[in-house]
Amino acid sequence: MADYQKILVAVDLSSESDVVLKKAQLIAGDDADLHLVYVQEPMDNIYVGIVPQSAAFSGLGGLEAQLRDELKKKLAALGEKFGVPSDHLHILNGSPAHEIHRFAKENDIQLIVIGTHGQKGLQLLLGSTANSVLHGAVCDVLSVRIRASK
Amino acid sequence: MADYQKILVAVDLSSESDVVLKKAQLIAGDDADLHLVYVQEPMDNIYVGIVPQSAAFSGLGGLEAQLRDELKKKLAALGEKFGVPSDHLHILNGSPAHEIHRFAKENDIQLIVIGTHGQKGLQLLLGSTANSVLHGAVCDVLSVRIRASK
Repeated sequence: MADYQKILVAVDLSSESDVVLKKAQLIAGDDADLHLVYVQEPMDNIYVGIVPQSAAFSGLGGLEAQLRDELKKKLAALGEKFGVPSDHLHILNGSPAHEIHRFAKENDIQLIVIGTHGQKGLQLLLGSTANSVLHGAVCDVLSVRIRASK
Repeated sequence: MADYQKILVAVDLSSESDVVLKKAQLIAGDDADLHLVYVQEPMDNIYVGIVPQSAAFSGLGGLEAQLRDELKKKLAALGEKFGVPSDHLHILNGSPAHEIHRFAKENDIQLIVIGTHGQKGLQLLLGSTANSVLHGAVCDVLSVRIRASK
């Protein structure tokens, strides 16, 4: 059986991304392809259920574009820190689990690496991102436990 | 960051266990400790919600003991095939996720490897074993995707 050669690392660009990325590099074969993926969820996806009529939505386009620039810079810095080439850095738009699955399928990814806080109970029903990614993934998934103290 | 040194491989003793075990060996460091764990769920746990008054329960003790002997033999054969020493083979009793978590905590396990069929929808709500193991785990979890064709 071959080593994992094509690996998607889902990052949230918080300081926890370092932990997740280190684990991914640990597992990756010497000549493995590591892709860093950040999924930007459209703001109206997040807030429309809470404040569906908010006038603030009209200003979202500009805000999101600005945010996207900042996210790109953060992702570039992370890529540089871990030696991931810039064409392996991806900012996607949409629902995180859906976009991660789509990217994995389209790029023949063999392993998805993602951080998890080990939610249970109500959060399990509501579905954390790690949980949503696990279900429906067409490849292996490594869930890296993020400890609260980190 | 150190390699994974203490790994728990949750096996169901079906032919799929080979796939899961191969992936675990792929990731394990050269001198890593691999523990194979099979959790035997008490039959009355499984059926008591369906046929709570069944007279069949009185005969369960003997059946379970017999089953346990057969499971032990299967686990021993799997251990031999993959070069896992006999003191690293464990048959536990109880709820799979709970027993796997308990074993992981008590033995300072760094990585749990488990097979998954990538259930979604209703099965996600009902909770597959891989899903239950992910939630509440104190260590990393590698979910190995089992393909239907295997």
